[in-house]
Amino acid sequence: MTEAIPPGTRLVNLPSPFPFKRGGELKGARMAYETWGQLNAARDNAVLILTGLSPNAHAASHAGNPEPGWWEAMLGPGKAIDTDRWFVVCVNSLGSCKGSTGAASVDPLTGAPYRLSFPELSIEDGARAAHAVVQSLGIAQLACVIGNSMGGMTALAYLLLHPGAARTHINVSGSAQALPFSIAIRSLQREAIRLDPQWNGGDYDDAHYPENGMRIARKLGVVTYRSAMEWDGRFGRVKLDSEMRGDEDLFGQEFEIERYLEAHAQRFVRSFDPNCYLYLGRSMDLFDVAEYGGGDAIKGLAGIQVERAMAIGVHTDILFPLQQQEQIADGLRAGGADSQFVALPSPQGHDAFLVDIARFGPAIAGFLAR
Amino acid sequence: MTEAIPPGTRLVNLPSPFPFKRGGELKGARMAYETWGQLNAARDNAVLILTGLSPNAHAASHAGNPEPGWWEAMLGPGKAIDTDRWFVVCVNSLGSCKGSTGAASVDPLTGAPYRLSFPELSIEDGARAAHAVVQSLGIAQLACVIGNSMGGMTALAYLLLHPGAARTHINVSGSAQALPFSIAIRSLQREAIRLDPQWNGGDYDDAHYPENGMRIARKLGVVTYRSAMEWDGRFGRVKLDSEMRGDEDLFGQEFEIERYLEAHAQRFVRSFDPNCYLYLGRSMDLFDVAEYGGGDAIKGLAGIQVERAMAIGVHTDILFPLQQQEQIADGLRAGGADSQFVALPSPQGHDAFLVDIARFGPAIAGFLAR
Repeated sequence: MTEAIPPGTRLVNLPSPFPFKRGGELKGARMAYETWGQLNAARDNAVLILTGLSPNAHAASHAGNPEPGWWEAMLGPGKAIDTDRWFVVCVNSLGSCKGSTGAASVDPLTGAPYRLSFPELSIEDGARAAHAVVQSLGIAQLACVIGNSMGGMTALAYLLLHPGAARTHINVSGSAQALPFSIAIRSLQREAIRLDPQWNGGDYDDAHYPENGMRIARKLGVVTYRSAMEWDGRFGRVKLDSEMRGDEDLFGQEFEIERYLEAHAQRFVRSFDPNCYLYLGRSMDLFDVAEYGGGDAIKGLAGIQVERAMAIGVHTDILFPLQQQEQIADGLRAGGADSQFVALPSPQGHDAFLVDIARFGPAIAGFLAR
Repeated sequence: MTEAIPPGTRLVNLPSPFPFKRGGELKGARMAYETWGQLNAARDNAVLILTGLSPNAHAASHAGNPEPGWWEAMLGPGKAIDTDRWFVVCVNSLGSCKGSTGAASVDPLTGAPYRLSFPELSIEDGARAAHAVVQSLGIAQLACVIGNSMGGMTALAYLLLHPGAARTHINVSGSAQALPFSIAIRSLQREAIRLDPQWNGGDYDDAHYPENGMRIARKLGVVTYRSAMEWDGRFGRVKLDSEMRGDEDLFGQEFEIERYLEAHAQRFVRSFDPNCYLYLGRSMDLFDVAEYGGGDAIKGLAGIQVERAMAIGVHTDILFPLQQQEQIADGLRAGGADSQFVALPSPQGHDAFLVDIARFGPAIAGFLAR
C-alpha cells in the first residue's frame, strides 16, 4: 500500500545506521512530525506528544494543513494544550506507515519495501527516534512529554533512556508493562491478519491485500477501545432497518452495533499497513518497565526523574486498566516526582481521551498551567 | 464433521414437524439427554439443567458413562446438585452437534446435512425442545430448572412459554437479553468463521474445514469467558521457553497466555461444528425477554411464575455482566417469586460457574436444600 502522509508533515532523517534494541538496524530512516506554536527564545516551552498505535502526526489543524487532526479539540490556541504558550511537536511513531519509516517503507538498500525484513521493533526504538526529532529541533529539554496509550509506554521509555529530557510528564491511558489480557487481544489481532491467505507472509499489494484479517483485527480493537457501558446506552438492542440488513444473508448484520463495527473496519483496513500493525502491536506486548527495575515495575518507574507527573485514565478502560495508570503515578512518585493519579468516570473506555475532552481537557490544562 | 455423542446419551424424538419461532420447521428431529438419580413416585423431584453454548448432555459421570462430565464437581451423590435426592436431566441444546438435531445433522428429507438450510434458530425453540424431553419423561412440573449462560436464557424462555413448568429456578451467569458488547463479540466470532474460505458458505467437510475461523472464534470466546484479573495472577508476563517459541517466526507465540489460548483453540476447533456455532450464537443475540413485556425486560420477567428463584453471577464476568443477573432477580421478584440475587467475587469471569465450585456449589446447594 502507498504511504499516506498528511500535507504539511515534516520529515527528518534519523542517524544512519539507527540500531534497534533487539538487533538489526535501519539505514536512511526518517521520522515524520508536525509542530504547532512557537519555540521561545529560551527553548523551554516545548511539549512532545507521543501517539497511540494508529494516529499520524497530524494531531490538530495548522496553517500547513487545515484538516482537523485526531486531537483537534485538545490542541490549539487557547485549548487545553495551548499553542499560544507551548511549542508542540507530535511525531508519527517509528514503525508506523504515516511518514515515519516502518515495514511498509522502501528499504534504500534494496529498493523494495522492508516487509518482514524490518527489524523487530521495541517501544524503546520508537522513543529513541522521537528523541532524535526533538534534538533536531534544537530542544535540549522538553517542558512536558505527553504520551497516550502506546505513546504512554513510549514516553516512559523516552524518560528512562534520556534522563533529564523533560521537566514534566503526562501519561494518558498508558501502562508501564503489557498485561496478559491486552497481550491476548493483540495476539488475536495479529493471528487474524496472519491467517488471512492474502497476507502471504507479509508480501501483499493493493490488489492482493489481507482485508479480511485487517477487518477482524480492527473490529476486535474497537471492541476493546470502547466500553460495554457506553454501548448499552448508545446502541442497546437497536436493529437495522430491514432494507439495510440484507435478508438473504442468514448471519449478516442485524444490529446497529454490527454496523458500527463494520463502519470502523471499512475506514481502517486500507488506511493502515498490516505489517506495520503487526510490528507495533508486538512492540507493546514486549514493553516492560520492570526490565529497568530489576524485575520490579515500580522500581523501574522510580528511575525516571521528572519534576511533576500526572497519570490519567478512566474506570471503563479494559485494555489499559486504571490500576496501570495508578502504578505509573506511584512509581514516578517513588522516583521523587510531584506525581498525581487522576481517575475519570468517562464511559468511553480506552478511547475516552480522544472523545471525552470535557473531562480530559481540564485535567491536562490544569496540569500544564501549573 | 461427524457428531460426537457421548456413550450413555439417550435420544428422544421431537414432535414432527417441529415448527421454529422465526419460521421453518424440522421433521424427524431428536434431542439428546442424560439423567442422574431416580424420579420419585410423586414425580416431583426432577431438576433440569440447560447448558451454555458448547457443552453436551454429559454434565457428570454415571453408570452408562464413567467419564467425568463438564459439571462433575457440581452434580452427583452428596454434591451440590445431589442426585441422591434429585432426578437430574441435562439436555444437549437444540441446534447443537452433540446428539440433538442441529445444522450438522442429516435432514431426513434430503439425506444430506442441513448446513444453512437449517431454519433460523431462536432460544425459544431450544426451550420448547427441552420441554418436550421433560414431557417425554412423564414430568409435569420440575422441582427446579437450572440454566447456565446461554442456558440461563433458555430457562427464562422455558418458563415464559410453559407457565407452571417449574416450582423454582436458578439462573447462573445468564441474561434476559443480549447487550451490544456480547453481540459484538459473537458477531466477530461468526465473521471470523464466515470469512474463512474453507467455510465455503457452510459447505465444508473434514478435509476442507474452517479451522482458522474456528480458531479465532474460540480464542475470542476464551478471552471473554475468563477475566483480566485472573490472567494477571495466572500468567502475568511469563514468556515461553525459547525451544517452545519457534524463533524463526517473528510474530509467533512468545507469552504463556498465547500458548494457553492456542491450547484451548486446538481442543475446540474440530470438536464443535462451525455452522452450529453460528446458529447458536445468533440465537443468543436475538433473545430478548422484553418481547414478553411490551418492550420492558422487567415486565417480561415478571410474567414468569415460580415460587423461588436465584440469579447468581460474578463481578468479573464481562460477557454476561452481573447487572444482568440482578435484573433477572429483580424481574422474577416483581412477578411474585421469593427471589434472591447472589454476587460472587470469583476471579474467573463468565466461566467461574464451571471452575469456582467452592463458591457456586454452596450457593446452589443452599438454594436447593430449602
